Amino acid sequence: MMYQLYYWPGIQGRGEFIRLALEEGGARYVDVAVLPEAKGGGVPAILQVLEARNIQRPPFAPPILKVGAKLIAQTPNILLYLGGRLGLAPTDELGRLWTHQLQLTILDFYLEIFHTHHPLGDGYAYEEQKPAAKRRTKDFLAVRMPKFLGYFERVLELNRARGGPWMVGARLSYADLSMAQVIAGLRYAFPSVSRRAFRNRPRLRALHDVVFDRPRIAHYVASGRRLAFNNEDLFRHYPELDR
Amino acid sequence: MMYQLYYWPGIQGRGEFIRLALEEGGARYVDVAVLPEAKGGGVPAILQVLEARNIQRPPFAPPILKVGAKLIAQTPNILLYLGGRLGLAPTDELGRLWTHQLQLTILDFYLEIFHTHHPLGDGYAYEEQKPAAKRRTKDFLAVRMPKFLGYFERVLELNRARGGPWMVGARLSYADLSMAQVIAGLRYAFPSVSRRAFRNRPRLRALHDVVFDRPRIAHYVASGRRLAFNNEDLFRHYPELDR
Repeated sequence: MMYQLYYWPGIQGRGEFIRLALEEGGARYVDVAVLPEAKGGGVPAILQVLEARNIQRPPFAPPILKVGAKLIAQTPNILLYLGGRLGLAPTDELGRLWTHQLQLTILDFYLEIFHTHHPLGDGYAYEEQKPAAKRRTKDFLAVRMPKFLGYFERVLELNRARGGPWMVGARLSYADLSMAQVIAGLRYAFPSVSRRAFRNRPRLRALHDVVFDRPRIAHYVASGRRLAFNNEDLFRHYPELDR
Repeated sequence: MMYQLYYWPGIQGRGEFIRLALEEGGARYVDVAVLPEAKGGGVPAILQVLEARNIQRPPFAPPILKVGAKLIAQTPNILLYLGGRLGLAPTDELGRLWTHQLQLTILDFYLEIFHTHHPLGDGYAYEEQKPAAKRRTKDFLAVRMPKFLGYFERVLELNRARGGPWMVGARLSYADLSMAQVIAGLRYAFPSVSRRAFRNRPRLRALHDVVFDRPRIAHYVASGRRLAFNNEDLFRHYPELDR
């Protein structure tokens, strides 16, 4: 099966959670918008899907996964679909729901991270909402981030008896990939604060390392296809917020 | 099967999306925190679940559905679980994913509605973030709300050939229930703006009416168990934002 991923070029964004799953799962895929426009890629390729009026079940926004003629959207939904097919989720119903539940909690977490720099939404540039960003970030770093990290560390601790460093059972799942990505993003956005925050979260630190040491993930990072974090992205580094 | 729902008392909140599904599906359930504390209800019942240290797969936050000894959390995840069991979702995989995709887009929408009054998050009272709320709401009402409503109206239009007023195929799904709830919430929060916004959205208006006219939903509303919208809730009415 050949997959086609539609996601905004130039950023990791929500697309990266899908890319990590495709890479770890050894899937064949085309990152459509990375292709030159002349070859059917770029932003126009995405707009074409979003603006098409002949799609019976249209997506609202990227990321969008095209499988044959089918279009599947919404990050956790795409991962739910890929999980079973790429061996990145348990096969029993309760295990699948638990993995998905974790993914939705990871979504809550990275949305709150996005809101630290864009509390007033995408409609205003960061520079237009700096005071609001400072206040939101203060609460996030003091209250919300510790709550999320404490929760995920506990999930890892509870799953320790299964032997692995993973969140669900004895095998890596897509939730582990997404969690490692969020940890990497937090470290980019808040290098100073996150150094302290991860000091007493040994299981999250270990999860990050073991994910990025996986042969296929390491190969993907080394390939140059994984973009660098940058300040147009979901995770952004503003030194004035990192305190 | 007897279900137990754990959700904060006194508000509809995210719990209401689950309640509407349980009611329409004719499920037997206990709304645990509505019970008096002396009978094991109230906020303490929720805290007991959140603070328990003997749960192998702990929830992060309500709503939480207890089924036998199982705990399932995250609103779209609970609906995914209930959808098949209560006849509120298609039985084929693609139909289930499409319904879930719509639910996740509805989630995006009601989160943005929540952010209109709490752009800086739960950590500050509305009164502490009024200027930020005004700016966020301005962008929401001008740009985001029309985008979401236009999308959902289009989904209904595309599904017209199936004969029903529904979003997915020929039968009501949990996404229809959630969509109707969001429409009701928008009308409560923004009575003036939403009157204009729904003027040219006949299919969304019809969906709202047909959902709240369903015998079981009408019975639920008439029972007094459905709480009134209020300003401690997800949808809040601040006249200064409704313009």
